[in-house]
Amino acid sequence: MRRTFVLLLVVMLIACASVAQDNWYPSRWGADDQRGAANRITPAKVLEAKNLITRGQTYQLGRVYETGMPIFGTRHFSLRIPKMFGPNGTNQMYYHDEIISAELGQVGTQFDGLGHVGIGDLFYNGNRERDFAKAEGLTKLGIENVGALVTRGVLVDVAAFKGRPMLDGGYEITRADVEGALQKQNVTIRAGDIVLFHTGWGSLWMKDNARFTQNAPGIGVGAAQYLVEREIVMAGSDTWAVEVVPNPDSSLAFPVHQLFIPRNGIYIFENLATEELARDSAYEFAFMFAPLRLKGATGSPGNPLAIR
Amino acid sequence: MRRTFVLLLVVMLIACASVAQDNWYPSRWGADDQRGAANRITPAKVLEAKNLITRGQTYQLGRVYETGMPIFGTRHFSLRIPKMFGPNGTNQMYYHDEIISAELGQVGTQFDGLGHVGIGDLFYNGNRERDFAKAEGLTKLGIENVGALVTRGVLVDVAAFKGRPMLDGGYEITRADVEGALQKQNVTIRAGDIVLFHTGWGSLWMKDNARFTQNAPGIGVGAAQYLVEREIVMAGSDTWAVEVVPNPDSSLAFPVHQLFIPRNGIYIFENLATEELARDSAYEFAFMFAPLRLKGATGSPGNPLAIR
Amino acid sequence: MRRTFVLLLVVMLIACASVAQDNWYPSRWGADDQRGAANRITPAKVLEAKNLITRGQTYQLGRVYETGMPIFGTRHFSLRIPKMFGPNGTNQMYYHDEIISAELGQVGTQFDGLGHVGIGDLFYNGNRERDFAKAEGLTKLGIENVGALVTRGVLVDVAAFKGRPMLDGGYEITRADVEGALQKQNVTIRAGDIVLFHTGWGSLWMKDNARFTQNAPGIGVGAAQYLVEREIVMAGSDTWAVEVVPNPDSSLAFPVHQLFIPRNGIYIFENLATEELARDSAYEFAFMFAPLRLKGATGSPGNPLAIR
Amino acid sequence: MRRTFVLLLVVMLIACASVAQDNWYPSRWGADDQRGAANRITPAKVLEAKNLITRGQTYQLGRVYETGMPIFGTRHFSLRIPKMFGPNGTNQMYYHDEIISAELGQVGTQFDGLGHVGIGDLFYNGNRERDFAKAEGLTKLGIENVGALVTRGVLVDVAAFKGRPMLDGGYEITRADVEGALQKQNVTIRAGDIVLFHTGWGSLWMKDNARFTQNAPGIGVGAAQYLVEREIVMAGSDTWAVEVVPNPDSSLAFPVHQLFIPRNGIYIFENLATEELARDSAYEFAFMFAPLRLKGATGSPGNPLAIR
Repeated sequence: MRRTFVLLLVVMLIACASVAQDNWYPSRWGADDQRGAANRITPAKVLEAKNLITRGQTYQLGRVYETGMPIFGTRHFSLRIPKMFGPNGTNQMYYHDEIISAELGQVGTQFDGLGHVGIGDLFYNGNRERDFAKAEGLTKLGIENVGALVTRGVLVDVAAFKGRPMLDGGYEITRADVEGALQKQNVTIRAGDIVLFHTGWGSLWMKDNARFTQNAPGIGVGAAQYLVEREIVMAGSDTWAVEVVPNPDSSLAFPVHQLFIPRNGIYIFENLATEELARDSAYEFAFMFAPLRLKGATGSPGNPLAIR
Repeated sequence: MRRTFVLLLVVMLIACASVAQDNWYPSRWGADDQRGAANRITPAKVLEAKNLITRGQTYQLGRVYETGMPIFGTRHFSLRIPKMFGPNGTNQMYYHDEIISAELGQVGTQFDGLGHVGIGDLFYNGNRERDFAKAEGLTKLGIENVGALVTRGVLVDVAAFKGRPMLDGGYEITRADVEGALQKQNVTIRAGDIVLFHTGWGSLWMKDNARFTQNAPGIGVGAAQYLVEREIVMAGSDTWAVEVVPNPDSSLAFPVHQLFIPRNGIYIFENLATEELARDSAYEFAFMFAPLRLKGATGSPGNPLAIR
Repeated sequence: MRRTFVLLLVVMLIACASVAQDNWYPSRWGADDQRGAANRITPAKVLEAKNLITRGQTYQLGRVYETGMPIFGTRHFSLRIPKMFGPNGTNQMYYHDEIISAELGQVGTQFDGLGHVGIGDLFYNGNRERDFAKAEGLTKLGIENVGALVTRGVLVDVAAFKGRPMLDGGYEITRADVEGALQKQNVTIRAGDIVLFHTGWGSLWMKDNARFTQNAPGIGVGAAQYLVEREIVMAGSDTWAVEVVPNPDSSLAFPVHQLFIPRNGIYIFENLATEELARDSAYEFAFMFAPLRLKGATGSPGNPLAIR
Repeated sequence: MRRTFVLLLVVMLIACASVAQDNWYPSRWGADDQRGAANRITPAKVLEAKNLITRGQTYQLGRVYETGMPIFGTRHFSLRIPKMFGPNGTNQMYYHDEIISAELGQVGTQFDGLGHVGIGDLFYNGNRERDFAKAEGLTKLGIENVGALVTRGVLVDVAAFKGRPMLDGGYEITRADVEGALQKQNVTIRAGDIVLFHTGWGSLWMKDNARFTQNAPGIGVGAAQYLVEREIVMAGSDTWAVEVVPNPDSSLAFPVHQLFIPRNGIYIFENLATEELARDSAYEFAFMFAPLRLKGATGSPGNPLAIR
């Protein structure tokens, strides 16, 4: 028994050491940073976004949160309207509120923060799970640290590039797809941008939920690496994972999540409504979002805006 | 017993008839409208907002949602981090999510929708409670109908106007206060604007929660009527009610809520962090917010942005 | 408009009057009673139950509450284990708890209280919905009033009587079925008893949830009337409604619920695990249950016991 | 960095080894057991309990669950009644349910299961936290394994023994107190019993919640060891911890919880309503309880019964 334990420790030691060799932390924004690629958003980027607003047209990119929406695993979303409160005063004041219970930052349209995904038990900036992940909230990397994301947004319409209304489930968007689509759209990705991928998969939302969640088209590791090199802030899509599911390398589970979030501090926004942007060929726009400041949460629900 | 019932019905009849004489519905945007004053936001207003962005500076107006924050009545907010999920794949993918239970659109920084407040059982556009307020969500006036609020924002720093860091609890901001503060600030309110009031009361947040919720400074019916005439979209403040509590007329309960929401379709945003705008004398700015599209909800949490 | 309103009131008046003619309230236990048929349980019934305990054998009648169990409509059940709390003290005290969100008295094994079901807006003892059903809990008829149900229990194995492992979905258990099964079992129902029906339908639980909830065998109005005449306290079954669904009279929705709960103060216990009692031909037993004292709730989860 | 890590591992190794020397696992019911002291309840104990029922008198030992009840730390309890569902059918079927969100097995009257408390990361039977404590529920030691607790119950009225209506907060009930009270009451504790302590502290419930939760009288390690030797199944009390808080040894946090739950598989039932038993000098009774079968939960709410 004691011997087994020592052996186990040695194995752990080697495993930990080999992960550490990777040198993916500390982050480029310092060992104490909690904002990751949000640091790339400067006043200049805000002004760059502003200059893309020429028509006064807004797009809501958030989907409706409702009972029965596609949901991952055993997560849930419940909303109820209690009995009306009141009357109060001679003015017959009555009011309603709502009761919501959910894995709120991880259902429906959802923004993944830096505390969401780990490599083993290591998270962004090498934070170890047991050191910051507490029952009452993450004591580091909580979504309340992200702040405002007002920057240039780019839509990459891969479905259009492939000449299809919808990519197949499990289709890997490659680096070549991204470069090809951008060239076709005559748009480039710049440092500090957020990048949205339109795959058409979102057309299944609330139409064929079983198919929607079964798998998904999305970017693979190659395309993700391209985005890392471009120094983006965030990638989003009209699918539930942004990245391709299942990964073509069946031994890997959500490797793009790991490449983006812990390794590079890049955020992911899932289940966005990209169809109107695609319809309007709106490839450049001002992007506006600030996560709910849920103390110690791993993500945030949202209704981000594209404006042009 | 039967006689009492008939009498009761007659009384109800008279009461209903007298409320109806008021003629506050249908709304100016038609009997079927569900967006209220959000209809005032046109592409021109979006461009007007855009033109206020000159520095690339953003302000988060949302407070942190956390256990123990000031909360109204018996509402609650609970956040927990479950055990980590994983590992998945040879890449040792682990992940966290969060469980939140709350009266979500009506705790912390909160945006009141058109289904929140009624006059008797009548809501915006004369919708009767029993016709649209269902257990699984409002079938009309749900927050998912509001859409993007991108428009010019004005801060009215009443605390500064009064030469005080914080107004007293129960202080009624009058029409004269609003006009005086605007004149001092050299700013006017235009149709389609959103208007924020800085009272200093927000400095009590998480510092003296008992005092924060006990009462509050805020606009009275006079100031509110002034804003209705200016055709604003939304009023917000650094207090939990925006309006003065208790109302100086002790027979009235939240009369400004009724004047704004059911009667005029004007939205209310409570518990905003206005202190940085006040500190910077940022009296005009682009305001950006879109409620979470919570189907059938009465309100939305939020982290709205001011940009200049 | 006004004329329509008057007409509506007259129709309401007639409707209400005709319901009232029914004379199903006040209850036989007085106009203020909140316990209904639980009043039938006397010390003598407790002793009668005691005398049925001869072997010291206990049966748990509650099913396991778990994510994915059959559930009615859009109700939900969510359980999560947060991160461990601790360590505290030199003794390395760590602890876990659980977060549960659910329509708790109305999911899984569930005991329906007197505030659960109405006839129009009238509930047990003629209580009008708007008078006692408040957002923060029922102010009358809450489940906390029921108290201990320790009494004689009778199992009616209708499946065995029909010579089948499981009755068909939609099969109505008739008065003749009940009388026949009791005669076959050589058991009678006495005043103050609780009565359980074994239909075999429970064998679908977590095996074929879609079929389980689609419809169900159960008692019809005739059998229910028989039980009312026998002056029972509660009826239960291994189905989700106890009564037959759909009712053979397709114009009626859950008429047995109305007959039992508001009209006669008789309780209903759904989704019980009756299979072990049936296997052992345990037709008489001591029944032990006390609802959770959830203030103002409409029902209670439970794990009632049969002992013999 | 690497050196620190090795050092840390060595320290862990020593720490773990020293804990292991303790030999408190495997349990006396085998290394795979998940029921602990519930194994002590035999048909003979059920019959022993039955024979204590001589009057047909029942006592509910559960307190009312309500918003505002005393609660530990940042746990919560929320109950709301949604809008009524219906009407369905010509029979005007309407119904209510309730939404509850809570740390359900660990608020109010609560029964602690074997997965609740650990010594370091080791739980009952040496189960290691990371091996069985999963986000979706404990995969071992879940409360659904406990089963029926029908056995002899003994009340130890320490308040009466001390001649006081209520013991002081922080008063340690000693072995001598237990022995003295039992002698005064002329009752002995037998193997397989459950034992309840009346301290009078429950009189503060909903009267002075702040004082109730601040500290508590309760059994110390000495008295607990006495109960372990008597081979009881469960200990309960009218306080929120059963054991004395704070422990007189200020370096220890809830040591009785550790002695009972992981080391001896003995259950704890907190916040019981013992005052009526004490009033009636009901020192022996049949105790009846079965936890809700919440899959993978650490505890259960309850309304246990004492019958005599």
